[in-house]
Order: sequence, then C-alpha cells, then structure tokens
Amino acid sequence: MDLTPPKGMRDFLPSEAAGREFLADSLRRVFQKYGFLPLETPVAERFEVLSSKFAGGAEILKETYRFKDQGGRELSLRYDLTVPLCRVFAANPQLPKPFKRYQIAPVFRDGPLKKGRYREFVQCDVDTVGVAGVQAEAELLALGAEAFQSIGLDVKIKVNNRKLLNGILEDAGIQGEKQSGALLSLDKLEKIGEKGVLAELQSERGLSEKTASALLAAFAKAGSGKKALAVFQKTVKSEVGRQGLVELCELFALLDAYNVKNAVFSPELSRGLNYYTGTVYEVFLEKGEVASSLAAGGRYDNMIGDFSGREKTPAVGISFGLDVIGEALSGKPYQSPIRAFVMPIGETQKECIQLAQNLRSAGVNVLLDLAGRGVSKNLKWAAGQGIAFAVIIGEKEVTQGKFTVRDLTSGTESHKTAEQLAKFLGTRD
Amino acid sequence: MDLTPPKGMRDFLPSEAAGREFLADSLRRVFQKYGFLPLETPVAERFEVLSSKFAGGAEILKETYRFKDQGGRELSLRYDLTVPLCRVFAANPQLPKPFKRYQIAPVFRDGPLKKGRYREFVQCDVDTVGVAGVQAEAELLALGAEAFQSIGLDVKIKVNNRKLLNGILEDAGIQGEKQSGALLSLDKLEKIGEKGVLAELQSERGLSEKTASALLAAFAKAGSGKKALAVFQKTVKSEVGRQGLVELCELFALLDAYNVKNAVFSPELSRGLNYYTGTVYEVFLEKGEVASSLAAGGRYDNMIGDFSGREKTPAVGISFGLDVIGEALSGKPYQSPIRAFVMPIGETQKECIQLAQNLRSAGVNVLLDLAGRGVSKNLKWAAGQGIAFAVIIGEKEVTQGKFTVRDLTSGTESHKTAEQLAKFLGTRD
Repeated sequence: MDLTPPKGMRDFLPSEAAGREFLADSLRRVFQKYGFLPLETPVAERFEVLSSKFAGGAEILKETYRFKDQGGRELSLRYDLTVPLCRVFAANPQLPKPFKRYQIAPVFRDGPLKKGRYREFVQCDVDTVGVAGVQAEAELLALGAEAFQSIGLDVKIKVNNRKLLNGILEDAGIQGEKQSGALLSLDKLEKIGEKGVLAELQSERGLSEKTASALLAAFAKAGSGKKALAVFQKTVKSEVGRQGLVELCELFALLDAYNVKNAVFSPELSRGLNYYTGTVYEVFLEKGEVASSLAAGGRYDNMIGDFSGREKTPAVGISFGLDVIGEALSGKPYQSPIRAFVMPIGETQKECIQLAQNLRSAGVNVLLDLAGRGVSKNLKWAAGQGIAFAVIIGEKEVTQGKFTVRDLTSGTESHKTAEQLAKFLGTRD
Repeated sequence: MDLTPPKGMRDFLPSEAAGREFLADSLRRVFQKYGFLPLETPVAERFEVLSSKFAGGAEILKETYRFKDQGGRELSLRYDLTVPLCRVFAANPQLPKPFKRYQIAPVFRDGPLKKGRYREFVQCDVDTVGVAGVQAEAELLALGAEAFQSIGLDVKIKVNNRKLLNGILEDAGIQGEKQSGALLSLDKLEKIGEKGVLAELQSERGLSEKTASALLAAFAKAGSGKKALAVFQKTVKSEVGRQGLVELCELFALLDAYNVKNAVFSPELSRGLNYYTGTVYEVFLEKGEVASSLAAGGRYDNMIGDFSGREKTPAVGISFGLDVIGEALSGKPYQSPIRAFVMPIGETQKECIQLAQNLRSAGVNVLLDLAGRGVSKNLKWAAGQGIAFAVIIGEKEVTQGKFTVRDLTSGTESHKTAEQLAKFLGTRD
C-alpha cells in the first residue's frame, strides 16, 4: 500500500504543523484587531458556481478537482476563497455592509507541480465588501504591514492602480482587449527585463514597435515611488488614468495616517487576474531568498454584483500565502509550544500527575512522561523536541516538597516549590 | 445559478463562525496544555488507503466521496482523522514514541441526512500512540474533563472496557463473531430498553432466549459505577474479562489522582466500531437536550501495526464533535471578539485612524467605521453586531483630547483620554 499523501499534497508532522498553526494564529490575531471576523465555507462548491463566467476563469478551471456526490450533483474542490465569498455574499442579501471577513483554509489546484507549488495549499484571505473608497484598502495595507511585523518579517508593499495603468495604455493608443494582454507583459518587467517585455509586447500582444517602445519609455522615465507619482501627474491625460492618480494620492495620504512606511508606488505592477478594477498590491520580502510574493490583492468592484445579479457591490481584499510565508520564516529556531516535560523517578507517578495538573491550571503546557525511559535518555529526548525545561520528581523531591528544574538548553538546574514552579514556568522569556 | 452550498454542507456566517473558532481555540489550548501538538494531513487521501481492510470498514466506505486527479489517481475525501493518523505513523517510522497529536479538521461522509448529520463536519481528535498502559487513557479523560469545563459544559463521562465486555460474553457462552453483534445490541440499552435488546439479541444476533436473558440479567444486577465494579469482581471468570477489570480499576485510581470526578463505569457501553481493543468512553451532557455524545473514543491497539505491517503499536484517542458541542452551547449569548467600534463625526478620519492604531497596539480588537452612516444608525448597527463599546470622535473630542465611550449594552457614556481608553478597553470584564 502506498502510504504517501496524494500527489502534490503534504503531511505536516507536529514540529512543522505547530509552526504553521502559530503563524496562522498570529495572522488571525491581527485580522481580528482590525475588526475582521471569520467566515467558514465548505471545502467543496457546486461546479456550476466555480465555472460561472464571473468566477476565476478558464485557466483555473482546468486545474479544478471535480466529482459527483451520490445524488449525481457535480461538485468541485474550491480553487480559491474569493469565489466562495462572492457566492455567500450574493446568497445572503441580509448581510450588513461593510462586510469584513477573513478565511484561513486550504484551496486546491490539480495543476503542474514545481518548487513551491502544491495541489493543496492554505490561503489566508481578508476582504472588505461594500466600501467604495480607498479607506478600505488603506486599512487592509495597514493590517498587512502589522501582520508581517508581528511575525518578524521585513517586507515592502508594492502598490499600483489598474485605472492608472489603463489610462497610461489609453494615452499610448492601446485599447480594449489589448490592454489586458499588455498588462500581463508589463507585469514581467522585473522577471524578464525591458528587452524581454518589448519583444513580448510585439510578438504576443500585437503592439507596433513604436507603441511598445513609447510605453516602456514612459515607465522607465517615471521610475517608482513618490517621484513617479509626480511624473505621471504631469504626463497622464486620460480621465481613467487621472482617476487612478487621485485614488493613489488619497491612499498614500491615509497610509501616512496609519504610519505605514513600507508601501511604495510601483507603476509596473498589474497582477495577472482580470477581475481587478482599481488598487492592486503585492508584498515581497525586503531582503532574502524568497522571490515570490508573500501576500497580494486588490480591488474588484464587479465580481460580487455579477454573481448576485443585483446592484454593483465594491470589494477589496488581500490574500496571504501561508506556505510561502512559512518558507520565508524557515531557519528561525523552533520553540515547542510545550513548556515543560515532567518526569517521575521511581514511584512518583501520582505526584507527577498532581504537579502537572497544578502547572496546567496556571496555564503552562506540560508534557507528562508516559514512556518510562531512563533519566538521561528522557532528558535528551525532551531537548530534541524543543522543550525548554524538564521537571524531575523523585522520592526525595516529594518528601522535601521541592522539585528539580533543568533548563534543557543550558543544562543548569535549580530547585523550586510547586508554587514557585508555576510562577517560573508561567512567565515566557 | 444555485448559490447554496453543496447538499449536506454548510456556510457559517461570521457571528456563528466566530463562536466555532472560539470553541476550537478553547479545545486546542487544553490539548496543548496536556502536551499534544498538531498534525496536518491533506483533505484527500488515496482511495487505496481509505478502503484498506485495516481502515474504517465497508459501511463508511459506501459514504466516501471519490474522484480522480488528472493523472488518473483514485482519491477520496477523508471520512475521519484516525485513518490519516495511522497512515502517517506507518509512513514515518522515525516518529518518536509516545507520539501525541491533535487534529482539528473537516471530514466528509456522503450519507443520508438527518437532524444533526451533515456531509462535511469538523472533528477534533486527540490521540496518544505508543503507550500500552492506561496512563494514556487517564490523561485523555483528564484532558476531556478539562476541555468541557473550560467551555462551561457540565458532562458525565461513561467509561467501559472491551475486554471486560468480551469476558462477560464469554462467560455467557457467546463466542467469536457473535460477540461483536451482541455488543452492538447491548449498546442500545438506553435507546430501545431491555425488552428491545432482548428481542434483538435473539432475532438478529442468534442467541437463545436463555442466553440473552442471562446476559441482560447480569448487567441489570450489576448496575453502574463503583458498585458494578465490585459485582463484576465477584462474578466474572474468563481471563480476558478479569484483565478488563484490572485495567478499569487502575484507570479509575489514576482518574482520582487527576481529580476527575465525572467519570462513571458504565458496563453496557461498547461503542459500535470494531477496532476498539480495551478502554472505551463516551461523553454526554449531564443535563440538557442534546442526547448524542459530545466526545467519544477508546483504545485501538491493532490498527497502526496492521497499517505499517511492522510491530504492534498501541494507541488510544478521543474525538470531540465540534458541531454537537456547538449545539450544546447554543443559547449562550454571543459576544463579538470585536471590542470597540470607533466612529468619526465630521472631519476626524485621521484622528480616528490614529486612535484605532493606538488601541490595536494595546491588543484591543477595533472596528473602524468605514460606512459613514449617521450617528444613531451607526450605534444601533454596532450594538446589533454584539460589539461592547463605541468610541465617538468629533472635532470637540479632538480639541479636548478626550473621547466619548458609550457602553452599547447600558447606553451609559464616559469621557476618556487615549491612554485611559487603551487601559479601559484592554481589560475584559
């Protein structure tokens, strides 16, 4: 029997799973600080919903796991958390607006595997539905900045606006369908360089050499950051482009109020997905080896209204990739959530149980020895598990009412009463 | 387009999902206190694994969602968390013993629907692998007792031992295959009464009237609790039965050391599943309307060794049903995890942002008004969301540096500086 998980899916053994759980908890705490609450939806959706023309599109649909239930209903594993949000919002017109929800859950894509790509992976989505103004994206970016700060990662947040991009393309004489193709190519500037993009704009997106060169020159001239904003203020003419600039300026002013210092205007950023309608952003490590984005998102004002068939409902979101963030954090030393290993020597099992229960009442996570190994083997084992302290209880300790505490990192020992122990172990360094 | 979730599956809107998340967190905190760590496995398993003769059995397999990936591999949604644990343990011989893990995750059964039965539901499993003695079940029952205490539910824990049951049956002349059938019927004593069980033992389990009557009389004479233990000490003759009694006595002595007072010896309890080999238990509300068990489990010493094909590996677990526990808790008033609603009056958006950020640094969950509704409408809305306090910031408040705090339950107001506010809102009642 093949005992490995299904292809492209993974088991996470406790030392790794505990880190992932800690990470998800840290994010969740920040999401709640900003007034977001959880939404829970099924792992499976009706295929009809996922394949709707308002949903994720044909490319993603090709990678969707499909099956039927015993009633013959066509189901699929969800490929993201945005479509379920849109479905729930469309199905529940009574939901108050603004509707602010997060969802931390696995999504599924039966696609080609490569490094860092899996068929089951966890997304952490935060969305605000029902707010048209950029206060909503300012709040999400402040949340994003705080989330990464809370887990100790230095990041930069690249910010752009689809309206500005569309305006620049319009000014360059690129219209309609050609705009989204050109955006896909522009998005690759960092990856394939100016020459690569120039070639692709002509060969794949059908632009003339003159148009493609002019477009790239406009971006090259502007650069990025505040300076670029000033350049585009002078050069952009189309109405939609000017609207994008207004939104960007307002957004950066709000980010100042939020004291967010690591957001940068990045005019070439477009984000692949077709459904974005305004602000877009993507979060990268400031330094380090992980090149892919750790979080990304933007404004999508049409999708929910399309789903419900009712009025237009503005929405904006940010999605954190738990796997890639975990990768960026890897290398940080693992500390077990278990604080103390309590081990008996001789016939002290009952006293060990009582002490363990005492410590647990004080909120300490305690692993009680059930294996009955020898002392030195046991101590080595506990240290290998990343547990900070061992408490040793022999008959002498019971008589004296003082227990031996061993720091499993330094090897130093001290003696403490039950009360002192609870206090000592209850305090995190 | 049908916007409902797939048949038998559910959406949980934020007010309900927040309660479920709080519940799962409370359980998880207790699991960690007892030294258990998380394990994460895929939602899908190879069909070969779930359909193995060592797994859940034919009945459960009929209710399994099946599909193929694009490589033609046969997959299924998991129907429980025990089979994945056995697979992971069998696939990772390097795992240290005892191996103590929890997993809180959805499982799937494409079966008939009735009240309280769904096709996707969350299980919270805690298992200890590699400990043969009843210290392991004592720890799990202490954990169970504390888990229910921590969420404010009064429960009783029914405890029995399969060896004792098998011994009693053996003494009554019931052998081999007939034993498991008889156990299934005995398990229904509370549900269908003595007469019903008597009839079923004859009609469905092939016992003579004399044997069936003698069996029921033995249980009726014994009753339950400590008295029953004393009765069986005198009457049980078979070796396996006497072994069961030894284990039960040892277990109850350990439960005394753990100070667990709500565990009761219940001789008729057998738990349907075939794979249990020793202690079994089931947790019920002490009083109240929820009749089904809130948690259950037992010892299964053969399953993991069967899976790995290596040596016998003892294991014992307890599984909490998040849905049924949620049902038992329903009716308790909902308090939002969001503590304060901050709303501007007039042009005070920046000051509101700064105050909200201040409060968040102090660890307070804050919802900042993005809707710009009128004051009274806003206050009513926030109260309806279960939020405890509103902070109102007009131009006067900004000038004076004192903000209006309104208790949304009582309607009383007070005025506080930013510092006082952080202290006030940071303290939970």
